[in-house]
Amino acid sequence: MPRFPTTPDLDLLFSPRSVAIAGASTNVDSPGHDYVQAIKNQGFAGPIYPLNRSADEVAGLKAYPSLAEVPGQVDLVISCLPAGAVLDLAQQCGANGVRFLHLFTGRFSETGDEGAADLERQIAASAAAKGVRILGPNGMGLYHPAGGLSFRPDLPLTRGGIAFLSQSGNNAVEVITRGNARGLKFGKVANYGNGLDVTPGEMLRYLADDAETTVIGAYVEGVPDGRGFYEGLAAAAAKKPVIIHKAGRTKAGARSAASHTAALAGAAELWSTVLRQAGAHEARNQEQLLDLMLGAAMLPKAAGRNIAIVGGGGGRSVQSADAAEESGFTVVPLPDVVRERVRTKAPQLADWVGNPVDQSILAGSGLSSNGLLELMLESPSYDLAIANVGEDWFFGRPDAGERLKHACNRLAQVCEKSAKPVAVVLGATETNNREHRTLVDDVRDDFAARGIPVFASVERAAWTLGKLAG
Amino acid sequence: MPRFPTTPDLDLLFSPRSVAIAGASTNVDSPGHDYVQAIKNQGFAGPIYPLNRSADEVAGLKAYPSLAEVPGQVDLVISCLPAGAVLDLAQQCGANGVRFLHLFTGRFSETGDEGAADLERQIAASAAAKGVRILGPNGMGLYHPAGGLSFRPDLPLTRGGIAFLSQSGNNAVEVITRGNARGLKFGKVANYGNGLDVTPGEMLRYLADDAETTVIGAYVEGVPDGRGFYEGLAAAAAKKPVIIHKAGRTKAGARSAASHTAALAGAAELWSTVLRQAGAHEARNQEQLLDLMLGAAMLPKAAGRNIAIVGGGGGRSVQSADAAEESGFTVVPLPDVVRERVRTKAPQLADWVGNPVDQSILAGSGLSSNGLLELMLESPSYDLAIANVGEDWFFGRPDAGERLKHACNRLAQVCEKSAKPVAVVLGATETNNREHRTLVDDVRDDFAARGIPVFASVERAAWTLGKLAG
Repeated sequence: MPRFPTTPDLDLLFSPRSVAIAGASTNVDSPGHDYVQAIKNQGFAGPIYPLNRSADEVAGLKAYPSLAEVPGQVDLVISCLPAGAVLDLAQQCGANGVRFLHLFTGRFSETGDEGAADLERQIAASAAAKGVRILGPNGMGLYHPAGGLSFRPDLPLTRGGIAFLSQSGNNAVEVITRGNARGLKFGKVANYGNGLDVTPGEMLRYLADDAETTVIGAYVEGVPDGRGFYEGLAAAAAKKPVIIHKAGRTKAGARSAASHTAALAGAAELWSTVLRQAGAHEARNQEQLLDLMLGAAMLPKAAGRNIAIVGGGGGRSVQSADAAEESGFTVVPLPDVVRERVRTKAPQLADWVGNPVDQSILAGSGLSSNGLLELMLESPSYDLAIANVGEDWFFGRPDAGERLKHACNRLAQVCEKSAKPVAVVLGATETNNREHRTLVDDVRDDFAARGIPVFASVERAAWTLGKLAG
Repeated sequence: MPRFPTTPDLDLLFSPRSVAIAGASTNVDSPGHDYVQAIKNQGFAGPIYPLNRSADEVAGLKAYPSLAEVPGQVDLVISCLPAGAVLDLAQQCGANGVRFLHLFTGRFSETGDEGAADLERQIAASAAAKGVRILGPNGMGLYHPAGGLSFRPDLPLTRGGIAFLSQSGNNAVEVITRGNARGLKFGKVANYGNGLDVTPGEMLRYLADDAETTVIGAYVEGVPDGRGFYEGLAAAAAKKPVIIHKAGRTKAGARSAASHTAALAGAAELWSTVLRQAGAHEARNQEQLLDLMLGAAMLPKAAGRNIAIVGGGGGRSVQSADAAEESGFTVVPLPDVVRERVRTKAPQLADWVGNPVDQSILAGSGLSSNGLLELMLESPSYDLAIANVGEDWFFGRPDAGERLKHACNRLAQVCEKSAKPVAVVLGATETNNREHRTLVDDVRDDFAARGIPVFASVERAAWTLGKLAG
């Protein structure tokens, strides 16, 4: 009997019709204020009920002394109460027909204290008896722009189809922030902490059938229900790309995971096998997770492993060829159609230029690496491409900004026109010239806004394309 | 008989008393102008002679029609002439007692053209007959702030002890720019292109005995003289840290290297063995090269492999523990002296907090991860440390900028006070919030200016420390 014979009913968790915040606070430097402000900022469509015994309002919204005094039905309660007050809150939720209780509240089993673990079990039992489902405890909870939910007031308002499940809250914030900066638009995000009741497996199974969700990422330290996790994972991976970052792989990592989310972490090799069998992609760190999510969200699947590489100088070309071949690609020499085009414009280069296309060879010839990239993408010889911007070159020239922006815009047009995957490499974030930093930020933001994936190094671009090429 | 029985005499290559630029140009968008402007910008102490048949001056300096008409002795000539004019220039150099001829000029053997390769050989023979040493061809040449040399007008004026040899010019620019942004201060840098005469082996042998040079990095595609390279490398690595980034490891990379600098690249495993035997560190890409150069330049050698890790939330702690253990470190549990300190300030945390120190557990306790780091570094239980700034947390709080700057300054003080190596992790360059970007840039620049190494991810920090711990 499968753990989830039908799609789990989590719609009201991610898209509640009404929300109450227990422990809502007038102190702007507290989570009890953050949640009210964050949900308000996201433009939540239904009523938001701050619960506070003494305040009249929190973050400009009318506050209520308790759940019982709220004038309408509440689908989701968010708890910022101390641990000792949660059992009572769970009972109130049961009495008032609340569907989901998210416990931001921590200091339960993750502390290693037996009394705290026992209280956690009592809360679970009390909620289960009345059909109240629990997210957490010890988790930031929900970020879902289309549903008007957020766990921090500063998170983006942009809506999209990237789902992300995270056992860790700070990791969720990092992934949302960095992903958004690179053009990822998030849908359903849940930081589930200790995973006491609603598990990542159940959420994966739900996301498998969720129409809004196109790509799924997850950060997992350990799973309470191995079989349920595998079933949810396999169901999701059968329908859409799923990328899993499994942490707590080492002894030290597992020990740290236990004190973080009370997770029982496991051996690295076993996890790699399980992920492969389930059809999911494995990320070994946050950088790989983001790179794979970006590639899966923005690029079509490559038809094969013949790669075109352009841009940057000779050193970059050599390093790009190494990275591509080491990621399982064939760096196919220039086909005649491209070489003949070079011959008509710059005969002296026709027998010299190769793949990778060394931009520095082309200087002054009237040819550009963007133009050759366009020809190469049109050729059946290539399945996909990597384009190095080589921004350092521009910074040594007059009118660096204008030239860089022009070249990047032209490159973006080539990417947009092609039905084949193209990864852009733009890496000089490490400069202490403020003007150059701003220029790089500008062109990178433009690529992100146009849905073109940018990688900070050719090695990361090649690795990502290699994993996604299947 | 060793290739270099005595220290090679390259002082006047890196620190010439006078420089002439053949092919100096009044066109500000040309290399012939760049070299004059770049050397002038660096405050070169001796005379600079632009050579130009028709112009009276270049970049504000008096120009001369030819080398013969220059009023003084010339130690170094830089050629921006086309390839066909270089044989004549080499003969003039011989006739006028020039010591070094740097050929920025390219389009020789790297084009694959037999005639061009033949011309290259004739130039080598002509120069050798008169004792003129050649750097290049097909290389940007010299950047040496203390000697007043640079190959681009926009490179930093800061002087230091980091030497860098690069077969590729754009790679040299990238390494200087990125290294400088992270606080590396460069000394002798040479981009030697095809390496026709002065080889990387000879320069390594020279740098081994060079008092200015404290750390050596090199980017190599292939070497013309394997034995000389090994001898120079071993001599240098016996005296100071040497990091080699060998590119052209793959078939595609080697093919690209041949058309870039006519280099014969070789098998990856062979190179790894050679580098290890010579006592050098191997970098597989530019990121690793920079990380290792930074660590070698800024950190003392660790006495052992017991590591302290602090900062960031629970997810970051788990990921840090994984990275440290996978890089060969032991994540030693908190010793009693640290745990007792926690007990006096926050008894309820004393049995919960661990190594890595999860900053989120400490919130509101009056303890900070910086304070615990200081205690851990004072304890004999730890040989070195990684400190996560965890900047994403600050961005969710009021007064984020002030708090972040205060915490980073405190962390820098702890680093400065300790005689043990500490790597700082500050990674959220990927945010599209301009205010946050500027804040991260500010604190990163401050760490760099104070000589504290910053890594963009905990994995890169751990990997670097692991390689350097020996």
